[in-house]
Amino acid sequence: MNYRIDNLQYCKWSREVFEINREAGLDAVHVTVVYHEDFDEFLERTKEWDEHFKNNSDLIFLGKTYEDIIKAKKEKKTAIFFGFQNCSPIEDDINLVEKVQQLGCRFMQLTYNNQSLLATGCYEQKDSGVTNFGKEVIKEMNRVGVVIDMSHSAQQSTLDAIELSEKPIAITHANPSFWHEAKRNKSNEVLKSLAQSGGMLGLSLYAHHLKDSTNCKLESFCEMVAKTVDIMGSKNVGIGSDLCLNQPDSVVEWMRNGTWAKATNYGEGSKDKPGFPDQPNWFLDARGFANIEKGLLKVGFDEEETNNILGNNWFNFYKNIN
Amino acid sequence: MNYRIDNLQYCKWSREVFEINREAGLDAVHVTVVYHEDFDEFLERTKEWDEHFKNNSDLIFLGKTYEDIIKAKKEKKTAIFFGFQNCSPIEDDINLVEKVQQLGCRFMQLTYNNQSLLATGCYEQKDSGVTNFGKEVIKEMNRVGVVIDMSHSAQQSTLDAIELSEKPIAITHANPSFWHEAKRNKSNEVLKSLAQSGGMLGLSLYAHHLKDSTNCKLESFCEMVAKTVDIMGSKNVGIGSDLCLNQPDSVVEWMRNGTWAKATNYGEGSKDKPGFPDQPNWFLDARGFANIEKGLLKVGFDEEETNNILGNNWFNFYKNIN
Repeated sequence: MNYRIDNLQYCKWSREVFEINREAGLDAVHVTVVYHEDFDEFLERTKEWDEHFKNNSDLIFLGKTYEDIIKAKKEKKTAIFFGFQNCSPIEDDINLVEKVQQLGCRFMQLTYNNQSLLATGCYEQKDSGVTNFGKEVIKEMNRVGVVIDMSHSAQQSTLDAIELSEKPIAITHANPSFWHEAKRNKSNEVLKSLAQSGGMLGLSLYAHHLKDSTNCKLESFCEMVAKTVDIMGSKNVGIGSDLCLNQPDSVVEWMRNGTWAKATNYGEGSKDKPGFPDQPNWFLDARGFANIEKGLLKVGFDEEETNNILGNNWFNFYKNIN
Repeated sequence: MNYRIDNLQYCKWSREVFEINREAGLDAVHVTVVYHEDFDEFLERTKEWDEHFKNNSDLIFLGKTYEDIIKAKKEKKTAIFFGFQNCSPIEDDINLVEKVQQLGCRFMQLTYNNQSLLATGCYEQKDSGVTNFGKEVIKEMNRVGVVIDMSHSAQQSTLDAIELSEKPIAITHANPSFWHEAKRNKSNEVLKSLAQSGGMLGLSLYAHHLKDSTNCKLESFCEMVAKTVDIMGSKNVGIGSDLCLNQPDSVVEWMRNGTWAKATNYGEGSKDKPGFPDQPNWFLDARGFANIEKGLLKVGFDEEETNNILGNNWFNFYKNIN
């Protein structure tokens, strides 16, 4: 059995998006439900999702374990797994880790771009690694079954998290920096350490993480996948598209700025290009998985490897979350 | 005119304590109103203080500027200035800096012992200095008139804050590490940098910061003051006793642990001595200011210098907060 999984999307959720994901054959999607929200605000997000689940029960349901991915495939639906891009919902309280897990959270980044109470983000000048509180939280995440996600974290913090965590961690959405230098992309050292520990890298389709941005060629992307597999092996690589379908530019501004500065920060963008970048034409939405499938076969992957990269590797990773 | 100021107390507040402070001749006290509280919880603390002010209006009132210290002296009362030992009340929101100032906050530590969103605490293994958000918050604190307090911060973070802040900062309650090595005490490098920038050091009477702890001799303390003045000059040194009069031991446990760990941390204490340490017998409460006065004169300070250290230096510092 083969599964298709996109392990990071933050779309403007609607029936249209759920239909597209189903048309793309996605059995599971890890969706971002929180950027900067605190616990109470996360609770509000879960209520919004309750509405989505109620109104689109023929297409989606809340996923809690890997068995829900099997169920989704069988029922031709998409299992939705909740995740946070920042640790703000646990505030400064170790006891909230279990609470967010109970409310559905399965992935939590220890940091967004800036320093958090747990670790350092990739936009800080100095990286002091995982903090005292961070060490406690990693133990607790391991215990209750929330995956540590270091997509937006700085390098030392990421290496620390890999070492400290008793369970494999994930980088749900980022690319290797050997292919495209970006603060968010990852060094070979991180990729190797991640793979050795059984962790997963979800490759991103977000233009700022791609070589030549929006003009990135499918072939170039697939050649990058092949080189990444040379470093990490074919079992530790998947897709985390970082797709932000239909989101207005005000959302990316909020993602970058939250409430931490009075002036505007442009993050991976610039004053001239402050909004969401356009997607490459071969991945306008999740239906682009079909293009990646062809592209991977073309650069020499066999069918099994291709299916592993497009979902089975994530499926196996989900087996060990709880 | 001479002023007596204790620039850090966290007592179990009661009429008895306010009477003792007045008997000690204190014209102003900077009181800790927050350790780990968020904004809403800080609001609750201000309501508790409203009750204290109402029930003890013959002894205390809320201080907002240095002019309230003059008023207090005239009316034989003690002006109470609010401060935070952590930055938790501003959460992740730069706009809350102005709100806490409007509600009376005049001092805010950028960190308690652990990493905060702003800087690194003295109990962390690595110190990455002031963060991106921290830089924004320092600018905002300067703008609205909240003093940056680095008493519980790690060294690089403290040096960064001194450099980044356009106004002088404070270390409201700590001692020099040349006298007593403790994570919370400060190196000569920090003392020099602080003094050069016009900042203030409030010397602590908390046993864990004293040479020989509870058995510390008054003479030893006053000799330390003299050596500190050799390093910093006599205008940048005051008292911040860190007095926790009448507090039960459960409070120090909460101060150290908040909600960040499941196991118990003993901070400056130990498993054998988990509670508040006893005060030295010459500073059981603020009336010990009279003993320090005698002690300072005895080690060679003249009257003017002694009065400066016991309050006038803090008074002058308050002139430049707003």
